[in-house]
Amino acid sequence: MTYFDIEKVKYEGPKSNNPFSFKYYNPEEKFGNKTMSEHLRFSVAYWHTFTADLSDPFGVGAAERDWDNLNDMDKAKARVEAIFEFMEKTGIEYFCFHDIDIAPEGENLKESNENLDEIVSLIKQKMDETGKKLLWNTTNNFTHQRFVHGAATSSNADVFAYAAAKVKKSLEIAKTLGAENFVFWGGREGYESLLNTDMKLELDNLAKFFKLAIAYAKEIGFNGQFLIEPKPKEPTTHQYDTDVATAHAFLQKYDLDKDFKFNIEANHATLAGHSFQHELRYARDNQMLGSVDANQGHPQLGWDTDEFPTDIYDTTLAMYEILKNGGLSSGGLNFDAKPRRTSFKQEDLVLTHIAGMDAFALGLRIAYKMIDDQFFENIVKDKYQSYTTGIGQKIVDDQTSFAELEKYALNLSEITNESDHLEVIKAQINQYILNINNGD
Amino acid sequence: MTYFDIEKVKYEGPKSNNPFSFKYYNPEEKFGNKTMSEHLRFSVAYWHTFTADLSDPFGVGAAERDWDNLNDMDKAKARVEAIFEFMEKTGIEYFCFHDIDIAPEGENLKESNENLDEIVSLIKQKMDETGKKLLWNTTNNFTHQRFVHGAATSSNADVFAYAAAKVKKSLEIAKTLGAENFVFWGGREGYESLLNTDMKLELDNLAKFFKLAIAYAKEIGFNGQFLIEPKPKEPTTHQYDTDVATAHAFLQKYDLDKDFKFNIEANHATLAGHSFQHELRYARDNQMLGSVDANQGHPQLGWDTDEFPTDIYDTTLAMYEILKNGGLSSGGLNFDAKPRRTSFKQEDLVLTHIAGMDAFALGLRIAYKMIDDQFFENIVKDKYQSYTTGIGQKIVDDQTSFAELEKYALNLSEITNESDHLEVIKAQINQYILNINNGD
Amino acid sequence: MTYFDIEKVKYEGPKSNNPFSFKYYNPEEKFGNKTMSEHLRFSVAYWHTFTADLSDPFGVGAAERDWDNLNDMDKAKARVEAIFEFMEKTGIEYFCFHDIDIAPEGENLKESNENLDEIVSLIKQKMDETGKKLLWNTTNNFTHQRFVHGAATSSNADVFAYAAAKVKKSLEIAKTLGAENFVFWGGREGYESLLNTDMKLELDNLAKFFKLAIAYAKEIGFNGQFLIEPKPKEPTTHQYDTDVATAHAFLQKYDLDKDFKFNIEANHATLAGHSFQHELRYARDNQMLGSVDANQGHPQLGWDTDEFPTDIYDTTLAMYEILKNGGLSSGGLNFDAKPRRTSFKQEDLVLTHIAGMDAFALGLRIAYKMIDDQFFENIVKDKYQSYTTGIGQKIVDDQTSFAELEKYALNLSEITNESDHLEVIKAQINQYILNINNGD
Amino acid sequence: MTYFDIEKVKYEGPKSNNPFSFKYYNPEEKFGNKTMSEHLRFSVAYWHTFTADLSDPFGVGAAERDWDNLNDMDKAKARVEAIFEFMEKTGIEYFCFHDIDIAPEGENLKESNENLDEIVSLIKQKMDETGKKLLWNTTNNFTHQRFVHGAATSSNADVFAYAAAKVKKSLEIAKTLGAENFVFWGGREGYESLLNTDMKLELDNLAKFFKLAIAYAKEIGFNGQFLIEPKPKEPTTHQYDTDVATAHAFLQKYDLDKDFKFNIEANHATLAGHSFQHELRYARDNQMLGSVDANQGHPQLGWDTDEFPTDIYDTTLAMYEILKNGGLSSGGLNFDAKPRRTSFKQEDLVLTHIAGMDAFALGLRIAYKMIDDQFFENIVKDKYQSYTTGIGQKIVDDQTSFAELEKYALNLSEITNESDHLEVIKAQINQYILNINNGD
Repeated sequence: MTYFDIEKVKYEGPKSNNPFSFKYYNPEEKFGNKTMSEHLRFSVAYWHTFTADLSDPFGVGAAERDWDNLNDMDKAKARVEAIFEFMEKTGIEYFCFHDIDIAPEGENLKESNENLDEIVSLIKQKMDETGKKLLWNTTNNFTHQRFVHGAATSSNADVFAYAAAKVKKSLEIAKTLGAENFVFWGGREGYESLLNTDMKLELDNLAKFFKLAIAYAKEIGFNGQFLIEPKPKEPTTHQYDTDVATAHAFLQKYDLDKDFKFNIEANHATLAGHSFQHELRYARDNQMLGSVDANQGHPQLGWDTDEFPTDIYDTTLAMYEILKNGGLSSGGLNFDAKPRRTSFKQEDLVLTHIAGMDAFALGLRIAYKMIDDQFFENIVKDKYQSYTTGIGQKIVDDQTSFAELEKYALNLSEITNESDHLEVIKAQINQYILNINNGD
Repeated sequence: MTYFDIEKVKYEGPKSNNPFSFKYYNPEEKFGNKTMSEHLRFSVAYWHTFTADLSDPFGVGAAERDWDNLNDMDKAKARVEAIFEFMEKTGIEYFCFHDIDIAPEGENLKESNENLDEIVSLIKQKMDETGKKLLWNTTNNFTHQRFVHGAATSSNADVFAYAAAKVKKSLEIAKTLGAENFVFWGGREGYESLLNTDMKLELDNLAKFFKLAIAYAKEIGFNGQFLIEPKPKEPTTHQYDTDVATAHAFLQKYDLDKDFKFNIEANHATLAGHSFQHELRYARDNQMLGSVDANQGHPQLGWDTDEFPTDIYDTTLAMYEILKNGGLSSGGLNFDAKPRRTSFKQEDLVLTHIAGMDAFALGLRIAYKMIDDQFFENIVKDKYQSYTTGIGQKIVDDQTSFAELEKYALNLSEITNESDHLEVIKAQINQYILNINNGD
Repeated sequence: MTYFDIEKVKYEGPKSNNPFSFKYYNPEEKFGNKTMSEHLRFSVAYWHTFTADLSDPFGVGAAERDWDNLNDMDKAKARVEAIFEFMEKTGIEYFCFHDIDIAPEGENLKESNENLDEIVSLIKQKMDETGKKLLWNTTNNFTHQRFVHGAATSSNADVFAYAAAKVKKSLEIAKTLGAENFVFWGGREGYESLLNTDMKLELDNLAKFFKLAIAYAKEIGFNGQFLIEPKPKEPTTHQYDTDVATAHAFLQKYDLDKDFKFNIEANHATLAGHSFQHELRYARDNQMLGSVDANQGHPQLGWDTDEFPTDIYDTTLAMYEILKNGGLSSGGLNFDAKPRRTSFKQEDLVLTHIAGMDAFALGLRIAYKMIDDQFFENIVKDKYQSYTTGIGQKIVDDQTSFAELEKYALNLSEITNESDHLEVIKAQINQYILNINNGD
Repeated sequence: MTYFDIEKVKYEGPKSNNPFSFKYYNPEEKFGNKTMSEHLRFSVAYWHTFTADLSDPFGVGAAERDWDNLNDMDKAKARVEAIFEFMEKTGIEYFCFHDIDIAPEGENLKESNENLDEIVSLIKQKMDETGKKLLWNTTNNFTHQRFVHGAATSSNADVFAYAAAKVKKSLEIAKTLGAENFVFWGGREGYESLLNTDMKLELDNLAKFFKLAIAYAKEIGFNGQFLIEPKPKEPTTHQYDTDVATAHAFLQKYDLDKDFKFNIEANHATLAGHSFQHELRYARDNQMLGSVDANQGHPQLGWDTDEFPTDIYDTTLAMYEILKNGGLSSGGLNFDAKPRRTSFKQEDLVLTHIAGMDAFALGLRIAYKMIDDQFFENIVKDKYQSYTTGIGQKIVDDQTSFAELEKYALNLSEITNESDHLEVIKAQINQYILNINNGD
């Protein structure tokens, strides 16, 4: 059966008006010693693209999908077929999933695991046939009502145990399928209210949970990168992995910071009151930028909208951080994004990914050119030059004291600061964006 | 004396790396039967550009200006010289001011008015010499401590009277200088707290104030357009002219809606939880789009940042609304924007305006092309076609009833909706932006 | 069958530690010439209390309900039994519902209507037996996927017709059950994006829809009050009935303002950037305060949390506005609120309503005392006294002009404002709260 | 000279309607083995109460103060007299200041230091006379334009040196006056934009700055507690000490976490998207709760409003955290709060402090009673009991593995969670508030 009645999506350049073509994403085009495809490492999110039904808190599912009327296991198998066809036709090399995305839960844990085994086997076969790869998998320990009070941070020890068993199975799947990373997003690891929460116990337990996971991964020889995905709120009032810095504090406190990097989502960044670039930069500066959930939020809305990324400013600055990071190593750009509920046709799955891929391809083109020109680097170099000589160098080299600094300051006749001309920088970024297309 | 040691800023095209040139704003270039300059009607905001010192709630003024050390009236005169030189060198045709921007307040109202007379006379002379025009003036009834409880909505009738006297003077100045509009921004017309506020009395008084202003304008033959500038909060907790719709409700209630249009500021729109385009559209749909305060806010900050506009998405959609409105008539694009505090040099005044003018010039170029292609129009035409025939047409023509509609609905076998493909539209907008530059 | 294994909830006073008792709500206690019960007119929201399953965007239903495993129509009937038992045991006199809350949708409109007929008949019988009353009903034109683009503002005329047919049926039910009001909450009446929206056409159609509804109500002799319930966003990006003022502008524009009042929800107010009191005050000042959806939001969350109201500051100020309005006339306090997902037991339905009823009972006790003392009235009287004599009175009486006001201002030697002492007012409110309990 | 024409403010109990009395703050009343005064350790903020003029971004100063017309040094001396009179009359034992609050800056650093010496000497004399104490002092490295790009994180090494010299002087003052703590609030330590910021260099420099300060404090034998005061934004777009967790990450990274505790401000917490209680709890759980800036924000406003605290819910939960922390040790409750601009009279300084002191006194009364009853402790004990036996205990004791947990989970027949009944807890908190006053 064919789920997407289209040809393989081709690069047709910026003037094309074929919606089923790429205008900016040209997978084999080289930027430095890597192709666009190698730079961008796009990934399909199983949940949004093949499991979600586009329901919202005020509406039932609106998605029209070919597998809607199949029974559970047949539906699961159809989705496997569909995602591999989808990856083939869009040219996306990676995918990601939660355990419950790929196989239905059974009556009990044993049945759930059997369902997983059957589908994982099918996925493995398709991976072998097509060469597609698993960017990361993760465990959904938040949707089922048993996780109503959390998973690793549940007030119920039985739930901690159940969550552990599910992560154990997921790690085995990660090993089987050669996942390049393993993600933790703590959907219910947080609190509804502090009034009845023992935050210290819950965070201690969360750390214990991570340590048990690391031990088990080592035991089975799973070598993928562990990633934490921060989010400040939703569904809980306060999520413990609020943002990159908060999770960094937690990891350091529990001596886990060498074991984890971050999976950074644009929309989670903005919900936390930061720019996407800020979260990427923080992680990069701490050698903890692992992977990216590529989407965008809505500036007037206070919840996770998970829109496909189309804002060129955001994709440019994100690609700047990624390129400066030397790429994402084992990570990638996973489209943790869903079509709007009003884009409910199956073909919208393709169209939305094209929109996102083209936006990041543009971001790569522009950021690559900027780095080639040392655009930001020159700005920063000029701005901080006072730290390369004299008293500045002494400060950087830990060769001074308050007494010396006071003496220096008392002798300063006047302090002269330079204007940052920030608006000029913004105007120049517009020029970079507008000029990038000219070569065609 | 020369305040800006530069040549007249010229259009050098998108590849120029001269910061003192326009890359996209080419004033005489024609779009339809109007030049870019005629479409955009840029205006300098006296307060941000020639009066403000770049202080913020945690810092004193950082601006370095040639007139900093002059005494009050000399400073006022120097600023007049400076703004006319500035308009000449940037090619901006309009300016805007509050009464206290142009002349210092005296010991009492009489002295303040005399100061105004002296400076207005100087401005008139410069206008006559240069042909520059006053887009609008307004009255600052919010900075002085006498307005601590409001102006027209003050709990103190003496303050109402004082505010009225100041607006009277401003209307006379408007008449004298041929202002094309007159603006009301109610900086203290709102409340700190409802706990001690008689909102009904205050709003009744505000309406009375407007009616007195209209009567006086008629009396002196001032025919400029009256404009209200909505803002939801800051400095007060709740400003009465919250957003365009709220002010529209007020104007209708007091039978003032024929006498006013709106001056819409981008940053005020987003503080109110709307997009800039939304506020423009609401006003346009009600034939009340009068003028625009061209700036932008910061998506992570909850106060009025008044940044120079550089976001091409925003300027494109703004220019789309303006073009669809048939232009702004007597209104214009006033840069109610200030350099960042870190851009404190006098030359930053020029550089920031170039950034803003180029951003709006790009917006014009792109929006004009979109309209030429009927890009949005075709989307909307397709989407709503069901209202052009059959039951849809009956609905639009008021030719149906609930009974008929029920009968129709009972006979519908199935309802078929179309996908909006919103993400494709966003991707196409990116193409419009990226392709606009190609002609050069 | 018994659904709530408790006695009728009794007033036991502020020292009781019986969770199934009222501490502040004493239904027959008189405040002026009305009992507490008559002042508060509490109502149960069918949807949150008897239909909702406590799912959220990241989790399935967690609610444990006795009727979970029944088939559709049996479930519908069980819920009718349950809500009437619930009203009896809590002493709540009113209830509210959407059409689809009470009866399942059928294969088509005809079947849906037949299901409704059967359940409405059962409800009517229970109402006759118990004397419980319908505060209002409404039509759910947002959950089903047919409403993906809106209902009255859908781009699809078939959907407009279908929505009209559903409202027609709802009005007939309102007539049959003697509903005291009829509510419109436009769950999908708004836009996902302006990029593909003809806002003018959509708002014109919304007005037409309301006019058809009014005509039909008149035709069948339904005399209940029509109410609009504003909300700024969610599920759509921008809801047309954004807040009270915006909806007021709409109603005035289309000459509908005499036909509607407002149903004001606390959490919708705060999502719109207003306080709950502000929205109530706006409506009261315009004689449009119809009814209240009693709940509260969370100050750190950007979506509709619909918590049960427990904040005494909010309930006090809400009751102040309601008492000053002379009560809610045909309206009431409808608990549009849901237990937290972590309060998933059936008994939580009772416990949460007790929390909300006690909070509003406290609000009534405190606000009543404040009005008795003329607490706010005296503050306002002092503050605005300058408008009762001299120039102030002339302003209020429309007996002055800008010329006279200027003359007056020129002669003012000095302007003296009074301090508002707002912090003292807040401290006194704390005293009112803390002292209210002393009588017991 | 007398600045506050009142008697010493006395406790008159909850029924008093004398605005210049305490209704709840009874300084010598014992709660456990400490008096109310010892529990609360109130402090006056020099800046808001004796230096600020109540200007805002749209208005000049409105404060009316007796020292307004004095010259700089006389004004500084008058303020010293005034604050000691103020502390005497309000019974507040502590005060806090920035260097520039107490003495005017001179033409250069040397003169500034001489001004400081003169005033510090006067303050010391008054402290000796009255027994009043310095809770903390700090350095204002943000107001002057030299700090336009930051202080320790300035791009200009000269500014780093100047800032260091100012902190050196402040530490000497702290030593001289016996300050119990020393605070760092990084008013400009952050960025306007990431586009031109070397965040890594800036944070490295910030850590170096702190290490130099610690070394100097040790050198001069200053043993007060170092405190960091987090804030997410304002004046900069992004402040590095965003919230407690972010600053905790920073301190751990640079091995500074043993040298610092936190000074937590309520309004900064809410600007960061947290509740006040959350920030206190995080600090308490990490033994880093040092001191409190007692104020409150406004739920509808996105900037630092610094209102005097009056919300009883907030003060109760804050006092709960403080009591559970065993008090604040060397810290206190500093009123980092200002009268509203509309409360501009000198007497408002007294009235606002009474409002804040009474609100925290109420918080203490209620929280003390709750702890006496083990109200929250019993809720938490019940909720987490599964971690005290069996598999739960093994988890807590690090005595289990994923393999064992999986085995346990596979054998679980069903998982049973308990309802949190959160709404009942909230209703019980209302009872605690309402009942606290009864004893009088």
